[in-house]
Amino acid sequence: MGKVSSWLSRPFRNTSNLKLYTKIMHIGFIGLGQMGIAMAQNLLKSEHSLAIYNRTRDKAEPLIKAGATWASSPAEAAYEADAVFTMVSDDAALQEVTMGELGLLNGLSEGAVHLSCSTISPDTARQLAQEHQHRNSRYVACPVFGKPEVAQAAKLWVCVSGETAAKDDVRPLLDLIGQGIYDFGEDPGAANVVKLSGNFLLGCAIEAMAEAFTLGEKNNISRTSLYEFFSTTLFASPVYRNYGKLIADEVYQPVGAPPALIRKDMRLLLDEAEKALVPMPFANIVFQQLTATVAKGKNNIDWAGFAGQVSENAGLKK
Amino acid sequence: MGKVSSWLSRPFRNTSNLKLYTKIMHIGFIGLGQMGIAMAQNLLKSEHSLAIYNRTRDKAEPLIKAGATWASSPAEAAYEADAVFTMVSDDAALQEVTMGELGLLNGLSEGAVHLSCSTISPDTARQLAQEHQHRNSRYVACPVFGKPEVAQAAKLWVCVSGETAAKDDVRPLLDLIGQGIYDFGEDPGAANVVKLSGNFLLGCAIEAMAEAFTLGEKNNISRTSLYEFFSTTLFASPVYRNYGKLIADEVYQPVGAPPALIRKDMRLLLDEAEKALVPMPFANIVFQQLTATVAKGKNNIDWAGFAGQVSENAGLKK
Amino acid sequence: MGKVSSWLSRPFRNTSNLKLYTKIMHIGFIGLGQMGIAMAQNLLKSEHSLAIYNRTRDKAEPLIKAGATWASSPAEAAYEADAVFTMVSDDAALQEVTMGELGLLNGLSEGAVHLSCSTISPDTARQLAQEHQHRNSRYVACPVFGKPEVAQAAKLWVCVSGETAAKDDVRPLLDLIGQGIYDFGEDPGAANVVKLSGNFLLGCAIEAMAEAFTLGEKNNISRTSLYEFFSTTLFASPVYRNYGKLIADEVYQPVGAPPALIRKDMRLLLDEAEKALVPMPFANIVFQQLTATVAKGKNNIDWAGFAGQVSENAGLKK
Amino acid sequence: MGKVSSWLSRPFRNTSNLKLYTKIMHIGFIGLGQMGIAMAQNLLKSEHSLAIYNRTRDKAEPLIKAGATWASSPAEAAYEADAVFTMVSDDAALQEVTMGELGLLNGLSEGAVHLSCSTISPDTARQLAQEHQHRNSRYVACPVFGKPEVAQAAKLWVCVSGETAAKDDVRPLLDLIGQGIYDFGEDPGAANVVKLSGNFLLGCAIEAMAEAFTLGEKNNISRTSLYEFFSTTLFASPVYRNYGKLIADEVYQPVGAPPALIRKDMRLLLDEAEKALVPMPFANIVFQQLTATVAKGKNNIDWAGFAGQVSENAGLKK
Repeated sequence: MGKVSSWLSRPFRNTSNLKLYTKIMHIGFIGLGQMGIAMAQNLLKSEHSLAIYNRTRDKAEPLIKAGATWASSPAEAAYEADAVFTMVSDDAALQEVTMGELGLLNGLSEGAVHLSCSTISPDTARQLAQEHQHRNSRYVACPVFGKPEVAQAAKLWVCVSGETAAKDDVRPLLDLIGQGIYDFGEDPGAANVVKLSGNFLLGCAIEAMAEAFTLGEKNNISRTSLYEFFSTTLFASPVYRNYGKLIADEVYQPVGAPPALIRKDMRLLLDEAEKALVPMPFANIVFQQLTATVAKGKNNIDWAGFAGQVSENAGLKK
Repeated sequence: MGKVSSWLSRPFRNTSNLKLYTKIMHIGFIGLGQMGIAMAQNLLKSEHSLAIYNRTRDKAEPLIKAGATWASSPAEAAYEADAVFTMVSDDAALQEVTMGELGLLNGLSEGAVHLSCSTISPDTARQLAQEHQHRNSRYVACPVFGKPEVAQAAKLWVCVSGETAAKDDVRPLLDLIGQGIYDFGEDPGAANVVKLSGNFLLGCAIEAMAEAFTLGEKNNISRTSLYEFFSTTLFASPVYRNYGKLIADEVYQPVGAPPALIRKDMRLLLDEAEKALVPMPFANIVFQQLTATVAKGKNNIDWAGFAGQVSENAGLKK
Repeated sequence: MGKVSSWLSRPFRNTSNLKLYTKIMHIGFIGLGQMGIAMAQNLLKSEHSLAIYNRTRDKAEPLIKAGATWASSPAEAAYEADAVFTMVSDDAALQEVTMGELGLLNGLSEGAVHLSCSTISPDTARQLAQEHQHRNSRYVACPVFGKPEVAQAAKLWVCVSGETAAKDDVRPLLDLIGQGIYDFGEDPGAANVVKLSGNFLLGCAIEAMAEAFTLGEKNNISRTSLYEFFSTTLFASPVYRNYGKLIADEVYQPVGAPPALIRKDMRLLLDEAEKALVPMPFANIVFQQLTATVAKGKNNIDWAGFAGQVSENAGLKK
Repeated sequence: MGKVSSWLSRPFRNTSNLKLYTKIMHIGFIGLGQMGIAMAQNLLKSEHSLAIYNRTRDKAEPLIKAGATWASSPAEAAYEADAVFTMVSDDAALQEVTMGELGLLNGLSEGAVHLSCSTISPDTARQLAQEHQHRNSRYVACPVFGKPEVAQAAKLWVCVSGETAAKDDVRPLLDLIGQGIYDFGEDPGAANVVKLSGNFLLGCAIEAMAEAFTLGEKNNISRTSLYEFFSTTLFASPVYRNYGKLIADEVYQPVGAPPALIRKDMRLLLDEAEKALVPMPFANIVFQQLTATVAKGKNNIDWAGFAGQVSENAGLKK
């Protein structure tokens, strides 16, 4: 990151650059999972026009009815766009929709910006940023925090990193999907380090509550009473409130993200820790709990269900 | 706990029992450390009268000037009191001021209540509750959460457990020191399990942030930018905000509580985990980080400074 | 330990002190479990006379038939003895047979030696050594390594610590039960630290093999082929050969020692680590695996069966 | 592996197949580090002829003087050879000498065997085996255990896996370098899983001894006395004897293999554990200790020196 701009990790102030906000853009959007649909819907509510692409078309229908244009490939979605969002499941999928034969790089105009929202490896982000540079287009990493309902409410927390001018140009679009945009500098990998770190902190909160609630349960203190106390006092924050409830109730439905998916994120985090030479004992434990959960075939639950490992090891059959 | 009363782990509603609030009591207070002084000051502001005892008298002077009576022993502080608070450093100290020759049990009237605020072993609480029962006095466990400045502002979070009638009788006093009182049932040990669990959750948050911030630092993302992002979004809670700042700045002064003291609490927690047969991998890691910190002679820092272990093991010399 | 005598941690050489070997002694033996019986039998084969005590008499019958005298209390077993062995299950049992009303201290002559073979806390050893000193008798810690069949063959490894003259006096007796006697100095607690460390190293070997064999199994390499390779080459030692077979076969019968018993030893070890300020990550993991095993109700297996935790967490149902 | 041949994981019996032993072969040898030189010297003592290749020629001179032929590329070393050994530092180096432009695959005759001794990823082994199959040559995985002096004495332990006929054909050559050859079936990756597991078991023994010896040291029991006791009794095996001495003396010179190199092996092991869904808590701890060692810049010591982490965390400055 080196030099830190004055607004680093502060939400953008919307009061400045008023003119920028009036520019009407043409936007591409690639990847219509639960998160992608919600984000695209919010973009569609604006004055901008939207071309959308997804591997299967059926998910796109509601958006098409609402005014979006269907694109038959990532390249087509990127055609003549000022900015293209991608929101896909992993590194491989992102590489395919970006650099594949019909990838967005083959449709994107010079100077246009790729807004990359997926949870991926920082190195993949850096590699893609270079590819864009070679073709005079621009890459902005902007992974997001929030469940699908948060995305629907346009209340995501968005982390961005990449070239400053590019970030400035797409700022108005990010304001349409998020409640706060946080800048982590020019390294295109940085925002993804932050995203992986966030999932890690979340996993730690889950394991910690699982241990505390299980100890309570064995001492005849209800899991719920512990949850209610801690999540409204010392730990009164969205994560402890939302995830704590799952762990208190031991109901891991509906599935926000399955254990195998977030295990992949923890693996990416541990890869970064390995490269950076940072021993992370908590990360290893969370990864092992997720591994055991997957190994036992429990993939049809929300990933917070790895908390069940703690109960099982305490002899509480679930 | 078995049966859970309807107000379990809900703050007492102050609207009810108005008459109760008018009863003027005589209160004893034993143990005038930073926390005890702050709590006693708030009691002194009320209409109740206060007798105070401390191992060394000098700390008592400001309170005496403000109207408190000096007692030359715990027994004397308890003499004719409706309720006696204790706020001492550990199990041994509490046993001494309670059951020693000049202990409060030798001064306390029948029916009077011992309000035990120290962070101690649940078993010690149970044992003391029995001693009280033998002498027809009553024991209420009421460990508190909050730093000295929180205690001064009468904003502590108070966890209580013990006999229901006794808890009801002292409720007005607890409202004088806390912003919320949370009931964990009749087991006199329960509130201490909660207190130990709270310190454990806090330790986990510290370790988790230390790992995430160190990974960020090695990726040229400033610790502060990570702290500011997480503590105002997903983890916007008092613990992440207050402790996160220490870990971001790596300044572990002033000393709220030294590593050796909280290590003792973690040891008590692990003792409970051992008895209850609950494997707690996170608790073991926090305990080991604290152990290494103490072993290296770093006792003149706040306990959150065990986060320095993560930096050291990543090769960042501090 | 400070100064280390020239024969420290070397087996006693039997060539010296020939006269000592000719002294005929009267011996007490307290505690006739599997280990105690085997050791007493070997003592009985010598020229010395033997008085035996056990909580229940039935176990003593074969020894009585073979020439031992029944004693109705530990004190009686110690009466006029030159040396008294104790081999009981834990600290509390040892304290009872030593310091109880009819404990051996009430029967033991001045200058006689208590040979304490149980696996206990080093601090208990130190405390008992002091009790002996007050009464002019002597305490030698001599915990042993080896299963019951090893004890029968008089092939135990014996660790001793305590006052040098006392150790010298009982040396001939130890040679009757062990294949090697190893001296760890004058601190009566030292030999117990070694014993606990040995059980710890054993637990580590079990966990390590469990992890390696399970990884092999999932790669279609039979557990047995890994066991046979490693236990005859790099790790060709009694522990890897004997315990490795259990882990390879996943048959944890017969029960040498149940998980709860060795868990107690690991707890004693962790207590020492806590006092000495030594973070021991491996010890914590072994303790947690044993805790989970006990919590799941698996107590009717040999303690090496905690290796099953690794298989379970890898999704291999047993 | 599925079916296990009768001689699986048993040393080959040299009494059979006498005729095979008389076949004189031409051998290639690629990679002349400490291990490679020692192995090549033993091959050179036989009746077979030897062509050698190394990145730098100077290391080859003694072998050339002793009768080996210098080859200017891996391809040339493989030319007309019945078998080619490779002993290089990692996966990338092996891929280069095998599949590079002047790689051995471009020199090897049909039916010839590649004996791959390096410590590499099982997947790399499988990939290379396929490459050989496409060109009608054969791949045998044969990683070895033993330090350079063991290699000089032709006392290595050799693990093999791959196609049965190929293994049979090269058996006489393996007997020239090892004291025992252990077969792990037809999967070309299997022998590498075993090799990685062996290094893992070794790492566990190091950490376990480090913890035990440090606990002893803090109890005034010399590290050496613990080492001497355990390495001659319960744990009397090459690994505990050799590595235990380093840990007892805390002298980690000379450098057998530096921490970073074996850390790479542990990373490969953890990759396998990840793919196979096996949580390996001990492996994670060993990896983290090695990571901290490397992060602190301690790379000029033998990898067993990660044991110093335990001493440091116990406050013993080294």
